Amino acid sequence: MTLPSSPRVVALSGGVGGARLLRGLARALPAESLTTVVNTGDDFQHWGLHIAPDVDTVMYTLAGLSHEERGWGLATETFTALEAMKLYGEDGWFALGDRDLATHMARTLGLARGETLTAVTDRLCRAVGVGARVLPMSDGRRATMIDTKEHGTLTFQTWFVRHRAVPAVERVWFDGDPGTTPQVLEALAAADLVVIGPSNPYVSVDPILTLAGVRDAVFAKPVVAVSPIVGGRAVKGPLATMIPQLARVPPSAAAVAAHYPGLRGIVVERGDAVPDVRTLETDTIMIDAAGSERLARAVLELGRAVS
Amino acid sequence: MTLPSSPRVVALSGGVGGARLLRGLARALPAESLTTVVNTGDDFQHWGLHIAPDVDTVMYTLAGLSHEERGWGLATETFTALEAMKLYGEDGWFALGDRDLATHMARTLGLARGETLTAVTDRLCRAVGVGARVLPMSDGRRATMIDTKEHGTLTFQTWFVRHRAVPAVERVWFDGDPGTTPQVLEALAAADLVVIGPSNPYVSVDPILTLAGVRDAVFAKPVVAVSPIVGGRAVKGPLATMIPQLARVPPSAAAVAAHYPGLRGIVVERGDAVPDVRTLETDTIMIDAAGSERLARAVLELGRAVS
Repeated sequence: MTLPSSPRVVALSGGVGGARLLRGLARALPAESLTTVVNTGDDFQHWGLHIAPDVDTVMYTLAGLSHEERGWGLATETFTALEAMKLYGEDGWFALGDRDLATHMARTLGLARGETLTAVTDRLCRAVGVGARVLPMSDGRRATMIDTKEHGTLTFQTWFVRHRAVPAVERVWFDGDPGTTPQVLEALAAADLVVIGPSNPYVSVDPILTLAGVRDAVFAKPVVAVSPIVGGRAVKGPLATMIPQLARVPPSAAAVAAHYPGLRGIVVERGDAVPDVRTLETDTIMIDAAGSERLARAVLELGRAVS
Repeated sequence: MTLPSSPRVVALSGGVGGARLLRGLARALPAESLTTVVNTGDDFQHWGLHIAPDVDTVMYTLAGLSHEERGWGLATETFTALEAMKLYGEDGWFALGDRDLATHMARTLGLARGETLTAVTDRLCRAVGVGARVLPMSDGRRATMIDTKEHGTLTFQTWFVRHRAVPAVERVWFDGDPGTTPQVLEALAAADLVVIGPSNPYVSVDPILTLAGVRDAVFAKPVVAVSPIVGGRAVKGPLATMIPQLARVPPSAAAVAAHYPGLRGIVVERGDAVPDVRTLETDTIMIDAAGSERLARAVLELGRAVS
């Protein structure tokens, strides 16, 4: 089987790393050929608002609005409301910008009116000019939970933002399985290739893959991944310390590949060897949109090779 | 009976005009001697937030944060979230600034946690450095409704902001009587003098006065008012057109005084005659804080004279 020239691609994504690959895929593919399924295990309520950090990062990155260096929020942002909320004694540990706040308010209002998260995400993405389809992994609640020795069980955001991902992770689990959406299952059924972005396997990809029925639907298709581990280190985030804690092996691209049984291929940094799976070595650090596109084209090339 | 040198004053207030007099009373009296009872008949829900326009105007004015010329909102303000909300297709007719938004979010969160409007207002006022006591007229819902020929029955904000107070008013009524608060009744019982600020009698003062038990508690004390009508015109807002529509008389300070049976005195602009009630003529336009203080001292002088 070979891929068509514009394969229908479904890409699984967490936040920054996955979003940057999506930016490249969006440049390499026609808009109608790209669907992304985004982790919502980090979603939480703050100031009475429904916040979907990975969905927002994907939306802002695809819209060209994201803050490049900081890795969250918007390039042009002010924090006027946040400062006043602190003055009023409200929680200020999650830095919500004024522009970003509108996203969470619009989402929360949409959900309150009975829209699904899928519908409201689609509406917000169109409003900011995103062409690719952005699908939350689920319309229901599934919270990524982190068991730590130091602080017991924490929600992902509490562990990641409040505790800066410092407490050692004993186990990652997911509270609730509301199932995925018909839109995700239809997109997977129609896909020529599934791409697992360079996201954290434990806290960004597993929340999606372990939803009832999703793993089978994903691995019914050719699946390639991009390693979030480069030369034994995580490009961003706590993954390099989580792999030894959770898989009892050193952090490596091979450890990432081994986490996905059935994977057909993996794109890794030059010099990162991965046994037992087709490997494409290239520059995997995406410092700008052109870098994202180069990596995306490598991913599609590997996808063609394994299909 | 004569007033003590620092009389305990309860001032009834709507938005801008009342707030400016309060600013003067706060300069003329020790903080512990001034309690203001503020109209909440304009309160409404917008973007899922509880907005209390008159409470905010009073709070911002007493804190020295209000926008002087505009008559609403904050002197230093940005509208980043509003612009994004419009982009997302949400209602943009009520201009919520980013700093102002925090006030409504903090209030809404407080109410959701079970605080009364009285408690959360007190907390927010202290946070921004207001010394006087600011009491909402009620902790329950009482909505000022405007019957118009053109558009039927409108909520106050819809009539005032959305329709710019243009549709002729056939009747003003109040939806719900949740009663006032123990705090308001205690403040009135302890008062030496009640001041009715230069606010719209129909839509700012009547919502307070017509709450069960309030009128009797108010008029058990010496009551003086400040006329919001100056030379037959309203200083701000639609009052000059409402008096002929609702009272069938020309707009005048006398018409305002006649609206409050039992009133002992009224402070009016020089040249505005009011029969049958003790009148003090002075400059009533408050263009700055010093002007507010001069007017407040005139009010207290008249209060002394009628006590």
